[in-house]
Amino acid sequence: MSAVVYGVGTTKFGRQPGRSGSSLGQEAILEALGDAGVDSVDAVYAGTVFGAPGTAQRALQDAGITAVPVLTFENACATSSTAFHEARHAVMSGRYERVLCLGIETMTSSFDGPITPEVTDSEGRAGLALPGVYALVASRYAYLHGLDTKALAQLAVKNRRHGSFNPRAQHGKEVTLEEVLASRMVADPLTLYQCCDISDAATAAVVGVPRGNDRDVRIAGSALRSGRLWDHRSTQPWGYELMGEVAAAAWEDAGIGPEEIDLFEVHDAFTIGELTATEALGLTAPGGGADLVLSGHTALGGRQPVNPSGGLLSRGHPLGATGLAQIAEAVWQLRGDAGGRQVEGARVAAVETMGGGTAGIDGNGCVVVVLGG
Amino acid sequence: MSAVVYGVGTTKFGRQPGRSGSSLGQEAILEALGDAGVDSVDAVYAGTVFGAPGTAQRALQDAGITAVPVLTFENACATSSTAFHEARHAVMSGRYERVLCLGIETMTSSFDGPITPEVTDSEGRAGLALPGVYALVASRYAYLHGLDTKALAQLAVKNRRHGSFNPRAQHGKEVTLEEVLASRMVADPLTLYQCCDISDAATAAVVGVPRGNDRDVRIAGSALRSGRLWDHRSTQPWGYELMGEVAAAAWEDAGIGPEEIDLFEVHDAFTIGELTATEALGLTAPGGGADLVLSGHTALGGRQPVNPSGGLLSRGHPLGATGLAQIAEAVWQLRGDAGGRQVEGARVAAVETMGGGTAGIDGNGCVVVVLGG
Repeated sequence: MSAVVYGVGTTKFGRQPGRSGSSLGQEAILEALGDAGVDSVDAVYAGTVFGAPGTAQRALQDAGITAVPVLTFENACATSSTAFHEARHAVMSGRYERVLCLGIETMTSSFDGPITPEVTDSEGRAGLALPGVYALVASRYAYLHGLDTKALAQLAVKNRRHGSFNPRAQHGKEVTLEEVLASRMVADPLTLYQCCDISDAATAAVVGVPRGNDRDVRIAGSALRSGRLWDHRSTQPWGYELMGEVAAAAWEDAGIGPEEIDLFEVHDAFTIGELTATEALGLTAPGGGADLVLSGHTALGGRQPVNPSGGLLSRGHPLGATGLAQIAEAVWQLRGDAGGRQVEGARVAAVETMGGGTAGIDGNGCVVVVLGG
Repeated sequence: MSAVVYGVGTTKFGRQPGRSGSSLGQEAILEALGDAGVDSVDAVYAGTVFGAPGTAQRALQDAGITAVPVLTFENACATSSTAFHEARHAVMSGRYERVLCLGIETMTSSFDGPITPEVTDSEGRAGLALPGVYALVASRYAYLHGLDTKALAQLAVKNRRHGSFNPRAQHGKEVTLEEVLASRMVADPLTLYQCCDISDAATAAVVGVPRGNDRDVRIAGSALRSGRLWDHRSTQPWGYELMGEVAAAAWEDAGIGPEEIDLFEVHDAFTIGELTATEALGLTAPGGGADLVLSGHTALGGRQPVNPSGGLLSRGHPLGATGLAQIAEAVWQLRGDAGGRQVEGARVAAVETMGGGTAGIDGNGCVVVVLGG
């Protein structure tokens, strides 16, 4: 049995400290159910990273979804991609006919700046917040391949331009190359505009068995794996090998290669994250990421747009809600509903979400999903 | 395909603020893998309620379990029962051959007394912590059936006596009826010794396909459901209807009735919780719970011992670790390895875990599992 997406829904992303997770969640749920044309589901696969116990249930009760199994997953940044991947498997195995996926995160009332790492992490004890982890990725990348910091900044310009066409994005204004380079240095070489923002949002999708509806979007493949130890013997930047392995598993599951994919939503929590993702996913050879940006290959209008939504750099990054936001963008693109940021003729899309960076391991987990085809 | 338990492991339960979740988790994992006689698994289904992102991964890395899918579930008190139920389904569907289940919770360094309810809950806004929720259960029960407060206290005496035979329990000393009744009133009619303690612990189990090993324990059935709205029109105590529905689904899945089950591990977070559970699970008619205690039916040596481990009242209640602690006890009992608390001739055991009480709903979720047979 295969599985399809019936519908998706998201709130606007941004600083919304006055809204509770349940209020945001309810809005996303109702849009997804309406988009799917259903008013009940067999189970709910929810996700939140920092939400209190019952966060999903609070959102569900007012939306009228009760008395079904509700699972809540946590997998760092890949939390709601994980819920989606698991929902797909639940439908494929014949366990459920349709599953509501839900991501909820409210961060702006809890954090002031980057997420505080745990003192129980080796990174936390070293004072290494996530901007620092990604700066080390950039340093290693520079050692291996050289790093064109202007190309890296240009990547932020590209994604913020895409985001200017996305009415749900937290940061909907374009920025210039000069502005990106001149913005405050957060963790060398990553300036402020190369770092995603914390955010408040909820996202949802309904996954079900094929029902012969033309608007439904096929889930062609997906893979999930968790990381290995930091290994000082590895020559690669943090996360690179994990992303590559998970992508290879997803391409095999879908029976296609990255060259056949029309657009990608990838985890650009920091600019260097997208640069390494495009290489790990096989859009180009190692070291070729900057050229993809400079040539326009990954920009709207290019051969393979990456983050047409504007990515995390524009949309903001409410951890447990991000994966389903990427899925929602892919669904809108494949239906031709993406407005000013539409990728013309999009038939196949891929989503990559990288979770973690804590725990001294090579990522808590990575999820890659292929939609359409 | 059916699924069996290959092995289980738990730390000691108690106030262990000097030990990290990863240290506790590693100990439980290594015992479970050793007990199972395996050194690798296909996936990890973990659970924690209050643990930070990466809690499971931190425990796994030193145990050498990496590069596999790691899912972390949160379902309030039913967190690791949920992980176990899901792992069973993953094995049954043929997705994985063996799955490590893991529960980790460290509470004593975060809480001083009962769990603080969230202000986003209706209960939290009303200042209704969980002892209060269960006191309301007792009040409703008293209205419906009358409540013998001595029988309720006797239930604590029974479970603490069972716990005196459990070397891993947080509270291993017996208490007298007089001590229970004279202990500090927490939420009328629940005195201190009728309330479980917060705790630090980790628990683990390996679930896999049948392999013809006599020590493996069959998972005969399981069910999971989440609650409905508090409904002022319901005549029943909070959680009662949900427990009954989930138990009925589990008995049907296992093809047996409660009268055929030799022992039960149920969610005695408060004495009244066990009393209502024995009725909701069908050991007796509504209102008959006190007689089960007074007659010795549910004591060690009786016809159907309930909480031979000593239950949450003796063992302590590290939220995300509790479900697998109940499972571990059932496995030890069915193997005849339960020492001084062994239920003679035990062939079939059932576990019930009730999660939640927040979120204005009838429990976040309830899980019932049947083992053996």
